[in-house]
Amino acid sequence: MQEIFDYIDAHAQEYIGRLQALCRQPSIAAQGVGMAETAAMVQQMLTDVGATARLIPTDGYPVVYGELPGRGPRTLLLYNHYDVQPPEPLALWTHEPFGAEIADGRIWARGVADNKGNLVARLCAVDAWRQVRGELPLTLKFVFEGEEEIGSPHLGAFAEAHHTLFQADGCIWESGYKDLQGRLQVSLGCKGITYVELRARGANRDLHSSNAAIVPNPVWRLVWALQTLKTPDERIAIDGFYDDVRGPSPRDRELLAAWDFPAEAFRQSLEIPAFLRDATDEQVKEDLLFQPTCNICGIQAGYTGEGSKTVLPNYAFCKLDFRLVPDQRNERVLALLREHLDRHGFSDIEVVDLHGEDPARTDPDHPLVQAVVRAAQVVYAAPPQLLPSMAGTGPMYHLCQRWGIGAVGSGVGHADSRNHAPDENIFVDDFIQGIKHMAQVFQEFAAS
Amino acid sequence: MQEIFDYIDAHAQEYIGRLQALCRQPSIAAQGVGMAETAAMVQQMLTDVGATARLIPTDGYPVVYGELPGRGPRTLLLYNHYDVQPPEPLALWTHEPFGAEIADGRIWARGVADNKGNLVARLCAVDAWRQVRGELPLTLKFVFEGEEEIGSPHLGAFAEAHHTLFQADGCIWESGYKDLQGRLQVSLGCKGITYVELRARGANRDLHSSNAAIVPNPVWRLVWALQTLKTPDERIAIDGFYDDVRGPSPRDRELLAAWDFPAEAFRQSLEIPAFLRDATDEQVKEDLLFQPTCNICGIQAGYTGEGSKTVLPNYAFCKLDFRLVPDQRNERVLALLREHLDRHGFSDIEVVDLHGEDPARTDPDHPLVQAVVRAAQVVYAAPPQLLPSMAGTGPMYHLCQRWGIGAVGSGVGHADSRNHAPDENIFVDDFIQGIKHMAQVFQEFAAS
Repeated sequence: MQEIFDYIDAHAQEYIGRLQALCRQPSIAAQGVGMAETAAMVQQMLTDVGATARLIPTDGYPVVYGELPGRGPRTLLLYNHYDVQPPEPLALWTHEPFGAEIADGRIWARGVADNKGNLVARLCAVDAWRQVRGELPLTLKFVFEGEEEIGSPHLGAFAEAHHTLFQADGCIWESGYKDLQGRLQVSLGCKGITYVELRARGANRDLHSSNAAIVPNPVWRLVWALQTLKTPDERIAIDGFYDDVRGPSPRDRELLAAWDFPAEAFRQSLEIPAFLRDATDEQVKEDLLFQPTCNICGIQAGYTGEGSKTVLPNYAFCKLDFRLVPDQRNERVLALLREHLDRHGFSDIEVVDLHGEDPARTDPDHPLVQAVVRAAQVVYAAPPQLLPSMAGTGPMYHLCQRWGIGAVGSGVGHADSRNHAPDENIFVDDFIQGIKHMAQVFQEFAAS
Repeated sequence: MQEIFDYIDAHAQEYIGRLQALCRQPSIAAQGVGMAETAAMVQQMLTDVGATARLIPTDGYPVVYGELPGRGPRTLLLYNHYDVQPPEPLALWTHEPFGAEIADGRIWARGVADNKGNLVARLCAVDAWRQVRGELPLTLKFVFEGEEEIGSPHLGAFAEAHHTLFQADGCIWESGYKDLQGRLQVSLGCKGITYVELRARGANRDLHSSNAAIVPNPVWRLVWALQTLKTPDERIAIDGFYDDVRGPSPRDRELLAAWDFPAEAFRQSLEIPAFLRDATDEQVKEDLLFQPTCNICGIQAGYTGEGSKTVLPNYAFCKLDFRLVPDQRNERVLALLREHLDRHGFSDIEVVDLHGEDPARTDPDHPLVQAVVRAAQVVYAAPPQLLPSMAGTGPMYHLCQRWGIGAVGSGVGHADSRNHAPDENIFVDDFIQGIKHMAQVFQEFAAS
């Protein structure tokens, strides 16, 4: 592999230039900015590294789908997204969001960590391999979607319609990063999500609050409904909610024990007296990856300005997200929530389904996991850390788990990459190392 | 009295002109608009009807204080306010807020019902009496404050400092109106109020909601704290909250039974299935005037825009108003609330005191009440309705009850006067009738 690594080092400037070019092309799915241009650009980049590539329409932005046949029997799927988060608030950036400036050893740009750096690194790994050795040792398939940052609303339908296309022996998931100690984090799953809005209505108009003695207040209805969902000991009180929670296996517990999560430093950085349930540093790791959640993302009703306006509001709503763990399912949680509210006397509370994903998890002993770890041991100085799951959510169930494809997250971000925030960045060196790591993954997985 | 009534009719245009002049002078306490000009104008109007008048400074806008000695031993205090609510939202007015236009038999202006119409009608009654008969049959005192619409923050201190000035045998309170059937509503009290903001804090910044598995969410803290304050059966669960609630006396129950409140029409106009506690039309009247409340005026936290942003907020607050009934006290309710939160494990919830008033109530058999009712029987076609209290709040405790002065609400508004709302108005005929009523009150109270 040294020849390939040398080639990558020799062509580092060119590869960095490819990443800069993609980062300078805005692709903000939420705002509809630059999506067609970026899809075409990514299709061209696939073609440039020898893949056949085409745009597959969805009811939203197209999926850029590519294939590159290789020598061996293995097939590896690469899942990425070409859309990025909106750059706002612009005033908080110290670098141009779409400038892809290099400073202090980092490339600064919206989407460079999430997830254009990973997308380009993977293509550069293909390029380097082909330039040095010709044919790849395994077949590659590429699914680059354009709607990950808006919740992948059409990826499930895409997967249903085209699942025969992207079947593979494993999938490299979109993201990954180094922790503060510089250790690559390799993750083996995603939590699912059920995101709803709860809405409560009262009279047909706001009233003077003196009427609160006789007229129902929908804010109280919402508060009373919410408090039936979760008790102050953080137990989610929806009947049946925990029925499908699998919990960590003995193998998961090994991984958790080996995971060096900086719990105390994180707690101090947040300035909170304790984690939930007064969790120990060991327990925090398990909670973060294996506890489902019921979280109030937002709530609003009535008068919220300065001082004391006396009003009886006629409308209240809140936004709730449940993070789901295997084997919970979004559809079932939605149904349980509705049943729970009805059973507790809150049939008047409307539940609006805003977004849902099912959780997914890959066996730590899957051949691709082993390949990614072995490759990391070759490329990186520090040993990688294997996480049974991410704490976050992605469309891994629909694209991979549903079809029995094991998925592994690995990428070029780091602990201060500021995904979704101003001054998103990656280290230039991490980008180059990520290219080498991916080339090594091709080698390891083909040989496994 | 017929001579005086005839004089009033003969000078109706002049009296209407005085009201229009005062309405055309903006006096928005919340925005500091026109306050000094209006205070000077009201002082001059008092002087014009023969009173001695002066401005008494407070830590806010001055009180216009006046005296007019009369023949008999009785002294009557007239409480009004010269400030008005802001006219916003301007786009919803079909008349100029400070135009005082006369159309469709009504005068349209911000403050014409609340409370310049009452203030001017009372002065016109003084004028008519003096023009026709000379000296009044009783001594009048006038307290016209400039901060009622912002919660009378300095009237308590004014009353403490100047209580020897305004002592009287009774007080005509600022407001009153006719119901839909044209019957004058005469009210004998105000509820008190405790207005607070509750604040909950979490980490030192908002976080990605995947952290909800381990990091406390202040919105949940607020929800759990709130639900300890009131149960879904509308029982306020703060220990000791009801201890000082006096409840209706047999005499109050007589008044309630005689009060023809259009409960069913009100319910239908609000499009609600039922009043709280499934109250009957009879019970609704008692609840409205005798139940204390715990009302959420507003609540806010986290993301409340379109769609599904996944965030763990680090701050949540709500605004609560408690309407108090005799003999509850604002200071005690504040203390009970703090104790309750502490006892229930919510010492972390901050309570910010935004406004407070104590409740007040006048004996239905007070001589002034009888005088107002008798005067109404003379002047108005329909018999008046005597209400044991208003459902709303005013500074009646500090100005009157505290000093043993019985206060009675009576005025020139009507059921569609739109106080605090666009197109505030009174009927011209009601204004003229109100002048006559007040002249008759002078007569009746002097003779009692």
